[in-house]
Amino acid sequence: MSVSATEVPRPVVHRRPCLPDVVRIYEVGPRDGLQAEQVIIDTATKLELVGRLEQAGLTTIELTSFVPPRWVPQLADAEELMAAHRRRPDLRYPVLVPNLKGLGRALEAGASEVAVVVSSTEAFAKANFANTVEGALASAVAVVEAATAEGLPVRGYVSMAFGDPWEGAVAPTVPATLAARLTGAGCASISLGDTIGVGTAGQVAEVVEATVAAGTGRSALALHFHDTYGQALSNVLAGLEAGVTEFDSSAGGLGGCPYARSATGNLATEDLVWLLEGLGLDTGVDLAALVATSVWMAGRLGRPPVSRVVRALAGDVR
Amino acid sequence: MSVSATEVPRPVVHRRPCLPDVVRIYEVGPRDGLQAEQVIIDTATKLELVGRLEQAGLTTIELTSFVPPRWVPQLADAEELMAAHRRRPDLRYPVLVPNLKGLGRALEAGASEVAVVVSSTEAFAKANFANTVEGALASAVAVVEAATAEGLPVRGYVSMAFGDPWEGAVAPTVPATLAARLTGAGCASISLGDTIGVGTAGQVAEVVEATVAAGTGRSALALHFHDTYGQALSNVLAGLEAGVTEFDSSAGGLGGCPYARSATGNLATEDLVWLLEGLGLDTGVDLAALVATSVWMAGRLGRPPVSRVVRALAGDVR
Repeated sequence: MSVSATEVPRPVVHRRPCLPDVVRIYEVGPRDGLQAEQVIIDTATKLELVGRLEQAGLTTIELTSFVPPRWVPQLADAEELMAAHRRRPDLRYPVLVPNLKGLGRALEAGASEVAVVVSSTEAFAKANFANTVEGALASAVAVVEAATAEGLPVRGYVSMAFGDPWEGAVAPTVPATLAARLTGAGCASISLGDTIGVGTAGQVAEVVEATVAAGTGRSALALHFHDTYGQALSNVLAGLEAGVTEFDSSAGGLGGCPYARSATGNLATEDLVWLLEGLGLDTGVDLAALVATSVWMAGRLGRPPVSRVVRALAGDVR
Repeated sequence: MSVSATEVPRPVVHRRPCLPDVVRIYEVGPRDGLQAEQVIIDTATKLELVGRLEQAGLTTIELTSFVPPRWVPQLADAEELMAAHRRRPDLRYPVLVPNLKGLGRALEAGASEVAVVVSSTEAFAKANFANTVEGALASAVAVVEAATAEGLPVRGYVSMAFGDPWEGAVAPTVPATLAARLTGAGCASISLGDTIGVGTAGQVAEVVEATVAAGTGRSALALHFHDTYGQALSNVLAGLEAGVTEFDSSAGGLGGCPYARSATGNLATEDLVWLLEGLGLDTGVDLAALVATSVWMAGRLGRPPVSRVVRALAGDVR
């Protein structure tokens, strides 16, 4: 009962009751995707990637990160990228900032929106921020306060919200409390991240409800899934059913690897678009243009795209 | 916010309300999986595969197909496999039969349970069965009647139930009506197949409800998803929410290809197990043993496993 798939340009729409009417895709490919790629991409190619994502209809694109260049060599060109990029006034271009120094660089570069990151676990706080959970939160809160004082909206990422590679299970109250504190500090939105992709659908509802109960508005919530265990899209469905309206994804699954253990890539934007459009939720994305972008980018990275929709629609790509 | 995944042997349980209490996995790797693989696997290796699947805790394993050998050379050893396989009395071993001649061969070989296939679309009926939809149905009904007369339970596969590569959209009433006619002929269960993997979550509910409304009991339904567009697991979640209790999958995603357009592989059993166990639905599967089986089988096939759980838990496998 197998047959070769031929091109199916769009999914057929079958609506589902009790889902949000409008959802947003928050594209993280140029930042969270590229920072996990081994092949260093030059600034001109990144600019072409961003331009193609804009052309494909993505409206929120996380551009880069103002981390110290030695931490993430891939994003060491943050200033050059920002200076050369011609922003469209109707689109949003958040950038990640790890601390006040990074915020200073981002403001200098003309950032109009920023994002901060905290950790749900001590082990990840130590590994990723060389800090404690409270220390990383204090650093993030300082950035939130300084950025909001400048009039910039701030997104707060809560990482390891669904599990941790060292500590294992994470109680839903932990990310919920961190989200509440970031919201209290002034964050306009909170992205709950399953950084290692271990979470399942029941957990999504629990973490969302705990976060709302702790004081972050449901409409301010985003979900950030990695597809390491193949759960990202079923988790998106659970998130939609819990009333969440913003989902993070990465064009072509940038940041993942099609055959390695390190396949901790973000949910592929194309796979997310296929689900959302199939549910009758308009994404505004030109899927053919996005698939072409991911095929082109995979060529620059020298490996096949990980997105299943890209592989299905683009043919044999190696 | 990426981090290398370390081994997480089991998902953390977070139950979700309103799901079935008990679900079954119907393993199709040795039949639907292998028949889509290019590398011909010898009978001894197939027997080892089946034995390892039994050891890993799978309780229903579709063993092979009694199609004419020239149609599917990979399964030309159906008689040899059945003769050499030592069946465990507590497990189920259905085999696929395309027609009365195939049923005769299956009975001769000692089959205790069989499956038939019909097509939802004329294009696929012509391509796969060289027949019309009605002609293929009549052929299947003849097998169902003859097999039930022998006391064998019969499963009816309804293929292309969610879309067709040539005809595009398929109305939910089409597979629903075919399912009702197979049920009326005596099928004990019906597996609705998204053969090309295009369906999305809203459609799953529609197809299930249409099928139940047309006369097939909800408890007799199974869902058979391919992960071509990455939708298989979100479709399983939608199926669980619609009260379906049986899901088809293939160990390691056998039948898929990690980088080709022809990646029409079945949902990987490991990815399904991760979801079900995370939801607190016991599968009885020893995930470590199953992952080891899929890694071993991928070695025999000379390519990486497509299951994301296998890649996450088994390390870099090429």
